[in-house]
Amino acid sequence: MIYLLDLFGTAVFAIAGSLAAGKKHMDIFGVLVVAFATALGGGTLRDVILGSHNVFWISDTAYILVAFCASVLTFALARIFTRRNKILQVADAFGLAIFTVIGTQKAAALGASPIICVIMGMTTGVAGGMIRDLLLGEIPLILRAEIYATASLCGAAAFVALLYLSLAENINIFVSVAVTLTLRLAAIHWKLSLPVFSIKD
Amino acid sequence: MIYLLDLFGTAVFAIAGSLAAGKKHMDIFGVLVVAFATALGGGTLRDVILGSHNVFWISDTAYILVAFCASVLTFALARIFTRRNKILQVADAFGLAIFTVIGTQKAAALGASPIICVIMGMTTGVAGGMIRDLLLGEIPLILRAEIYATASLCGAAAFVALLYLSLAENINIFVSVAVTLTLRLAAIHWKLSLPVFSIKD
Amino acid sequence: MIYLLDLFGTAVFAIAGSLAAGKKHMDIFGVLVVAFATALGGGTLRDVILGSHNVFWISDTAYILVAFCASVLTFALARIFTRRNKILQVADAFGLAIFTVIGTQKAAALGASPIICVIMGMTTGVAGGMIRDLLLGEIPLILRAEIYATASLCGAAAFVALLYLSLAENINIFVSVAVTLTLRLAAIHWKLSLPVFSIKD
Repeated sequence: MIYLLDLFGTAVFAIAGSLAAGKKHMDIFGVLVVAFATALGGGTLRDVILGSHNVFWISDTAYILVAFCASVLTFALARIFTRRNKILQVADAFGLAIFTVIGTQKAAALGASPIICVIMGMTTGVAGGMIRDLLLGEIPLILRAEIYATASLCGAAAFVALLYLSLAENINIFVSVAVTLTLRLAAIHWKLSLPVFSIKD
Repeated sequence: MIYLLDLFGTAVFAIAGSLAAGKKHMDIFGVLVVAFATALGGGTLRDVILGSHNVFWISDTAYILVAFCASVLTFALARIFTRRNKILQVADAFGLAIFTVIGTQKAAALGASPIICVIMGMTTGVAGGMIRDLLLGEIPLILRAEIYATASLCGAAAFVALLYLSLAENINIFVSVAVTLTLRLAAIHWKLSLPVFSIKD
Repeated sequence: MIYLLDLFGTAVFAIAGSLAAGKKHMDIFGVLVVAFATALGGGTLRDVILGSHNVFWISDTAYILVAFCASVLTFALARIFTRRNKILQVADAFGLAIFTVIGTQKAAALGASPIICVIMGMTTGVAGGMIRDLLLGEIPLILRAEIYATASLCGAAAFVALLYLSLAENINIFVSVAVTLTLRLAAIHWKLSLPVFSIKD
């Protein structure tokens, strides 16, 4: 179940990456590279920093196939995707929530301390999008606007906090996903954002 | 033999990095950093993602010395290099072919699945150039134009396909290099490129 | 003692990252991300490349807490920090010296060759600042101006050279820090810089 959701998140992030690349007039191969970086970058950074023996997509190529198919599908159906902007945003919020809880859970399973679990959850959720923006020559959007990484942070913190109650793991996962998703969707709907820290040059 | 070719590829990529940095008015130290990132970045990313115990240039400092000397030589002979643009392009195509087959072979030796071997071959071949472009504040060129990463992809795929025929390894290496090189040189000569995927904003 | 200095360097780099991010109108969360990348990025890259089992801030969360507090403090006291530009530059030079010697020492303790020790010392000292600049959409400053990475290089080389004399380790550390610090402060004071390598387009 959580595995299928993870693949769904991978597909959504690959589509988001492909669409962003499409606005920069890249060739189809460049679009694929950006799609892969968006969909697999966060989890790769997490696995490398945690020193796990295998990066997740090395041991399970399903992730690569899903990202590839989602990206190719985006070529074919670009018009549909760009028109349904709202649906994409909601799907992206869902991907963020899934990736966050999976990263947090993976770090917890390796016995990391609570603060590391939260950081790894966030890394899994947002680093892919940051790498995408760097490849496209832009300052990562999540550093500038909207409650995005903050939603990821709260979802990861919820998962870690619930660990102390020794509930069934599925409950922890469900609550964490709900927290991230609610915050992110609320931020989209009411255009919430954090205060800006600004220094005059 | 393959080892000497690998060092040759390292030198070529270091020269390419130095020349690109020279167009950005960097100091000589910055040029060295960009040269190292170009020449060693792809293989480093491959080794880190594959979780091999030692990044290749940690256990064999010859790569560092070659990259250093090639970069310093570029300072001295910049005029010659920039005039012989055609020769540099051909040498760069050769470096791409070598790096690709070495990355593919290394992943195969670690028992990775075919699709991972291809991805690691491409990563070794093109990631260094992408890191170079990011350091220079540009959108990676290979995402935008010409058949570059595609040539690397085909060379890596050829190597993996030939593994099933159980030929002598030298034959596999030779064919893979020939495939990448032919495609890349053809793309340079006839200015071939992939279709662009473009979305209106 | 060296541990306390390391935490001091972490704080200084986090402040530098926060101030740089503040000039780009980021939200407070984005500022935190940039602060963390500046303060922890160099050591993280070192640990990942050296293949050490644990990235340093995974096993000791004190680094994260220090970076977090320094960044939050910067929000509160931004006016003071920006006015005392000179003090910040000196503190930053100190952080560079500390990070350099710690990176060099860590590589030496893992039995790396001299040239690798020097490269790892430099990586620890300067990579965090490079990642910060990339996240802020700028060509890394240290590639372009002033004697910054060069000071780090000399400090690391001094540490490695002294290893052959079998002195007490504290002496090596002290000399290395003094070399980096002196060079960097001299460069700030007299505005020294390396020659630029420039090619016409």
